[in-house]
Amino acid sequence: MNNMPRQHDSHSRRTFLQTSAVAASIAGISLASNSKVVIAEEEKGKGNITILFQGDSITDAGRNKKESLPNNAAALGRGYPAMVAGELLGTNPAGSFSIYNRGISGNKVPDLKARWQKDCYDVKPDILSVLIGVNDIWHKLNGNYAGTVETYETGYRELLKETQEKLPKTKIIICEPFVLRCGAVRENWFPEFDQRQAVARKLTDEFKLTFVPFQNMFDKAAKVTGPEFWARDGVHPSVAGHMLMAHTWIEAAGL
Amino acid sequence: MNNMPRQHDSHSRRTFLQTSAVAASIAGISLASNSKVVIAEEEKGKGNITILFQGDSITDAGRNKKESLPNNAAALGRGYPAMVAGELLGTNPAGSFSIYNRGISGNKVPDLKARWQKDCYDVKPDILSVLIGVNDIWHKLNGNYAGTVETYETGYRELLKETQEKLPKTKIIICEPFVLRCGAVRENWFPEFDQRQAVARKLTDEFKLTFVPFQNMFDKAAKVTGPEFWARDGVHPSVAGHMLMAHTWIEAAGL
Repeated sequence: MNNMPRQHDSHSRRTFLQTSAVAASIAGISLASNSKVVIAEEEKGKGNITILFQGDSITDAGRNKKESLPNNAAALGRGYPAMVAGELLGTNPAGSFSIYNRGISGNKVPDLKARWQKDCYDVKPDILSVLIGVNDIWHKLNGNYAGTVETYETGYRELLKETQEKLPKTKIIICEPFVLRCGAVRENWFPEFDQRQAVARKLTDEFKLTFVPFQNMFDKAAKVTGPEFWARDGVHPSVAGHMLMAHTWIEAAGL
Repeated sequence: MNNMPRQHDSHSRRTFLQTSAVAASIAGISLASNSKVVIAEEEKGKGNITILFQGDSITDAGRNKKESLPNNAAALGRGYPAMVAGELLGTNPAGSFSIYNRGISGNKVPDLKARWQKDCYDVKPDILSVLIGVNDIWHKLNGNYAGTVETYETGYRELLKETQEKLPKTKIIICEPFVLRCGAVRENWFPEFDQRQAVARKLTDEFKLTFVPFQNMFDKAAKVTGPEFWARDGVHPSVAGHMLMAHTWIEAAGL
C-alpha cells in the first residue's frame, strides 16, 4: 500500500467534502444548488450496485438474521457494514445501492465455504467484501479448531478461485484480518497471526483483488489512544473502531 | 433556522474535511502531519464531554439495555446515537466523550418524566439530546393514549424547566419530532402533528435551547428519493435516515 497515500489523499478529501455537501444540503443547512451537482457526480457510473459484506462476528455485529432485505437497518447490524451503508445511501440518495450483511459470529474460512452458495452466489454481489481469519487462529489457540496457516491459505484460495469463476464480474475486496494488542490477544497469537495476515495480502495480489489495510489503520489509531479505545477485547471493535473501518473501507473500495 | 444556512455551510465543509483528514490519516492513507493539527483543533475546548441521547424507539434503535457503560457499541444501538458516537469518537480519538443512549421504544413525554432522575439527572450530561413526540400522537390515534397537544406542551415544558434547574450547566438539544409521508403516517396525523412540532420549536425558543430541524431535513431528503427510502413506515428511519440524522445532529450541536 506504500504507493497509495498520495492518490488516496486527494480522493479522500474530495469524497468527504462532497459527502458533507450532499448531507448538509439534504439536512437543509446548505448548498441547495451544489448538492445536485455533487449527487450527479456521485451517481456517475454507479447505477444499481449490490454490495455483500461477509465475515465473522466483527461483520455480523448483532445483525437480525430474520431480516433478509437489503439496506434493512436491523439486518445490517451495528458495525462497519451498517455505517458504510448509512454513508453510501445517506449521502448518495439519488444513487442506488443494495447492501447485505451476511457475516456470522464465530465463522472461519471453512464456515464461509459451507454457506457460500446461499450467502454469496445467490446474492450475486457486484462488490463482495470478505473479512475472515481471526477465529481461524483464536479457536485454534482455544483448542477448538485444528486449522493451520496452510489450512487458512488453501481454503481461502479455493474460496476465492471458485468465487472468481462463478462471479467473474464481481469486485472482490479482501479486508485484512486485524487484532489490537489487548484483551484476549496474547503473545502466543504471534507470529502465527502475522503469517495469516500475510496470506490474506498474498491472495489479494495473487487474484488481483482490492485490499483494505485494517491492521495498519488500527496500529496507527492505537498510537493515539491505546488499543482498548478501538477494541476492548482486542478483537471486536468499539463503535469508534467500526466507524473508522467504515471510512477506510469506503476509501479502499473507491466509493 | 432561516438565518443558519450560510453560517452552517462553511462549518459543515470544515468539519467534514477535518473529519476526512483525521479518519484518512488514522487509516494510514494520508495526511499524517495535517491530522495532528486537526486533532489538536478538535480537542481544543472539548475536554471530557458526557452526551446523553434520550427519546423513544427512534433513539433506542435496538440498544442492549443490559449494557450501561458509555461508548459501548451494543448499548448505543444501531441508530443515530451510535453513528454520532462513531463519528465523534472515531474522528476525534485524542478527545474524550462519554456517550450514553437511554432512549426507550414507545416512550412519550410522561414516560421520560417518570424515569428522568435515573436516566438523566444521575447521568449528569454536559449535553442532553431529546427526541420525543411521535408516540404522543401515534398512541393517541391508536386509542392507547389520551394526551393532547396541550398535554404535550405542558409536560414537555415541566420536564425542560426542571432539567434546567437541576442541570443548569447542561446544553439541551431539542430534536424536532418528524414523520415521513408514508407507511403508518396517514392524513389524520395532521394538522395535530404539525402543532406538536410547533410546540417543540416554541419550547426551544422559550428555554433558549438548541434545535435540530429533522423534519426540514427529511422533507428535503424525501424530494430526492421519496419518503420510503428514509423511513419505510414513516416513523422509523432507515440506516440512511439515521446516518443523515447523525450528520445533522453533529452540525446542529456544533461538535
